[in-house]
Amino acid sequence: MAKSFSTRDENYSQWYNDIVKKADLAENSAVRGCMVIKPYGYAIWEKMQRALDDMFKETGHVNAYFPLFIPKSFLSREAAHVDGFAKECAVVTHYRLINDPDGNGVVVDPMAKLEEELIVRPTSETIIWDTYKNWIQSYRDLPILCNQWANVVRWEMRTRLFLRTAEFLWQEGHTAHATKEEAVEETEKMLGVYADFAEKFMAMPVLRGLKTLNERFAGAEDTYCIEALMQDGKALQAGTSHFLGQNFAKAFDVKFLNKENQLDYVWATSWGVSTRLIGALIMSHSDDNGLVLPPKLAPIQVVIIPVYKNDEQRIAIVEKVNELMGKLKAKGISVKFDDDDSKRSGWKFNEYELKGVPVRIAIGPRDLENNQVEVARRDTFEKTTVSFDNLDTAIEQLLTDIQDNLYNRVLNFREENTRKADTWEEFISLLDEKGGFVLAHWDGTPETEELIKEKSKATIRCVPFNNPQEEGKCILTGHPSKERVVFARAY
Amino acid sequence: MAKSFSTRDENYSQWYNDIVKKADLAENSAVRGCMVIKPYGYAIWEKMQRALDDMFKETGHVNAYFPLFIPKSFLSREAAHVDGFAKECAVVTHYRLINDPDGNGVVVDPMAKLEEELIVRPTSETIIWDTYKNWIQSYRDLPILCNQWANVVRWEMRTRLFLRTAEFLWQEGHTAHATKEEAVEETEKMLGVYADFAEKFMAMPVLRGLKTLNERFAGAEDTYCIEALMQDGKALQAGTSHFLGQNFAKAFDVKFLNKENQLDYVWATSWGVSTRLIGALIMSHSDDNGLVLPPKLAPIQVVIIPVYKNDEQRIAIVEKVNELMGKLKAKGISVKFDDDDSKRSGWKFNEYELKGVPVRIAIGPRDLENNQVEVARRDTFEKTTVSFDNLDTAIEQLLTDIQDNLYNRVLNFREENTRKADTWEEFISLLDEKGGFVLAHWDGTPETEELIKEKSKATIRCVPFNNPQEEGKCILTGHPSKERVVFARAY
Repeated sequence: MAKSFSTRDENYSQWYNDIVKKADLAENSAVRGCMVIKPYGYAIWEKMQRALDDMFKETGHVNAYFPLFIPKSFLSREAAHVDGFAKECAVVTHYRLINDPDGNGVVVDPMAKLEEELIVRPTSETIIWDTYKNWIQSYRDLPILCNQWANVVRWEMRTRLFLRTAEFLWQEGHTAHATKEEAVEETEKMLGVYADFAEKFMAMPVLRGLKTLNERFAGAEDTYCIEALMQDGKALQAGTSHFLGQNFAKAFDVKFLNKENQLDYVWATSWGVSTRLIGALIMSHSDDNGLVLPPKLAPIQVVIIPVYKNDEQRIAIVEKVNELMGKLKAKGISVKFDDDDSKRSGWKFNEYELKGVPVRIAIGPRDLENNQVEVARRDTFEKTTVSFDNLDTAIEQLLTDIQDNLYNRVLNFREENTRKADTWEEFISLLDEKGGFVLAHWDGTPETEELIKEKSKATIRCVPFNNPQEEGKCILTGHPSKERVVFARAY
Repeated sequence: MAKSFSTRDENYSQWYNDIVKKADLAENSAVRGCMVIKPYGYAIWEKMQRALDDMFKETGHVNAYFPLFIPKSFLSREAAHVDGFAKECAVVTHYRLINDPDGNGVVVDPMAKLEEELIVRPTSETIIWDTYKNWIQSYRDLPILCNQWANVVRWEMRTRLFLRTAEFLWQEGHTAHATKEEAVEETEKMLGVYADFAEKFMAMPVLRGLKTLNERFAGAEDTYCIEALMQDGKALQAGTSHFLGQNFAKAFDVKFLNKENQLDYVWATSWGVSTRLIGALIMSHSDDNGLVLPPKLAPIQVVIIPVYKNDEQRIAIVEKVNELMGKLKAKGISVKFDDDDSKRSGWKFNEYELKGVPVRIAIGPRDLENNQVEVARRDTFEKTTVSFDNLDTAIEQLLTDIQDNLYNRVLNFREENTRKADTWEEFISLLDEKGGFVLAHWDGTPETEELIKEKSKATIRCVPFNNPQEEGKCILTGHPSKERVVFARAY
């Protein structure tokens, strides 16, 4: 088949861009760094939202909505937070435009300058904790378990569709608790929700662990993360859950009367995943023929393509297909019948392959005679002939198989690309030649971590939960170390 | 019962604010004009979103997402649009903060000034039509039927929670068509969707009609609207659907090759409803005891409150309630069992009344003995004793009855408050003494409409569809008129 785009081997980065573009997922807009999420890409996001939202609600969370703007002074309240977030951001300084006296459109009205500038939220801890202050008086008001679906803006210099954009969509959970234990439990619980979502819906196995001090969220006491490995051997942080301690409560003076009738600061967590997950999804499964989607997040799970030469054949096929569609829909399977007469069936085969539709059913006059259809799966390209009898059950099973196969394929890839390095030379040559996760000893200091990053461009992705303890020597300094941590070059 | 808030007669405006606050729907934030939508208020918005989104999809629309920011110059491209929207808006001028050299937090980095200012979208026609330009080459690319759920910002000077806020949440549909007829049909279809939603879900009857030139959307050829009447006799515009002609296609140079192989400009519509609908919902149904919600949009449709004196009674009740909850949930009814031991049942009765839960079930030991419960409806305060047998069916029917009753109550109110005026004196005294919709003749000129507005503070809400034609004289100028139009003072 003639390829209209790059393969992964030729140019991985171009391959990614081509898939985003040709599968109609997103595009750059006229505003630098801001993307347009096209309907097919947005439909994937809607599926992700629905699944995550259900999981949040099952774990007792409710949604709310907080302002887009944050007063500039709020960002300075938490010392670490301001360093992390108050730098590259969109600043609103004026609230009015007037007609240009020179007749060239509109200009900013110099009289309409804000007393205090407003920042377009890069994350909402500050405005939310300013709000929670009024919601919390006693332990009876706790916990507060709010989530928000919103857009945020971080003025990134180098942007890539989905992976790093100035504006992106996300959810951010912000919870308030009476005790440290409860807040830590919440942080862990939500990381578990993210890991479950990544593995069960995205079919993307993830490492679960803790970030080091250097990689921690600005303002957190601990950052828990899930890390995935992409096909080019680079890591991608897929979700984070932060234990914020009492930092934001102290910054915004949020105290409560505890059960012992004493005033104490409230304990906090925050956690988020974003449209970046769509980038991770693309890079986890797709191949040189285009997008590959796990059935649980595919906007179209099954496409049916009729193959006919005349109207009589077409009518017979349509009748049979309608019957099949009814059965599939009854099983909750999203199915599209593409009977567009202006396109050849070969073109359609190609198009739905490019768009990653998990299952394609082709049906022609001979199939009708034989009471069968041709079923092709997107993940393995395998084609089989399946009888019409119980076709709905067979398709349902096939979707499960594809979901499992994608997960296992990525898991195998990750296992094959997780290696140990015991010397600096080994470490660098693994990163340069193979990529992947490299398990290596590190002396535990932020300074060494920073040096390793400078020299190798690799970062510590996480210290995995239940990490095996083993004596060793730091690959850079040779100082003693008690455990290996996970290094990788990352998105 | 002791009232903790204003009645409608005492102070309608305060009554509204009290309900928003005491029913935990929303509150003002630290950012002027921006609200925090609290979980209970947001849950109503989620119900609205789900219902509308389903209706949009059933009518062939898909969701997408476009940038938050609009380059300043885009707003000037469409002459009428810039006058309507480019005035009071949030202007982003810089993209970086730096540490204050004087040590006072952070300040705007004067070196990080944007070449062209960005406007936080007040509505997205311009950025979307700039995008559509690349999506449309031929009639085969049409129609485009996109909707977006988003936040928008209009720098309002006087704000009121839900009704008028600087930032609000909404959906905006933006469609592109090959012919004028198709675009007009779409405009009408979406107004129909809004009217259906208002009447069937919000239980809020609406007038459907056309806006006059003065009240038209900035950039539209025609604005269709639905108008509702609030309990204080003021009108509220609940949704608009705009036929944009070829205005935006011309402004952004969006041409297509039509079936006759000729280049033509694309035809457009846009349509939107916002969180303002929550304000309309509150003011349509609520009473001096608090919020009243139609069952179809109530986050909690049924609350069950146990009344007991000892643990033995409590256990027996819980067992019975669990059985009932299962049956209600199986019917898709959202039900809450409030067994919080720290609150008295009287307090709970009050709380759920305030929060507008449509049906309250109370159950005590005597009820258990008699195989019955006490059922109270929020709309009429009517209480009945209902047998446990078939209670689920009875509740289901009751929810339908409440939904219908609320609709009819508001419809009656509107009919009682729709009056004709034939002279200016009659017109003014109706507006001053009764409010409501006033049907009056007008000479059809924008100048007279403006004069009437200045003198009476009333605006033409709409020229209803299928408006009866009748000879008359303009209430202000005495010039001849062919039909009455609908005047009201409005939100």
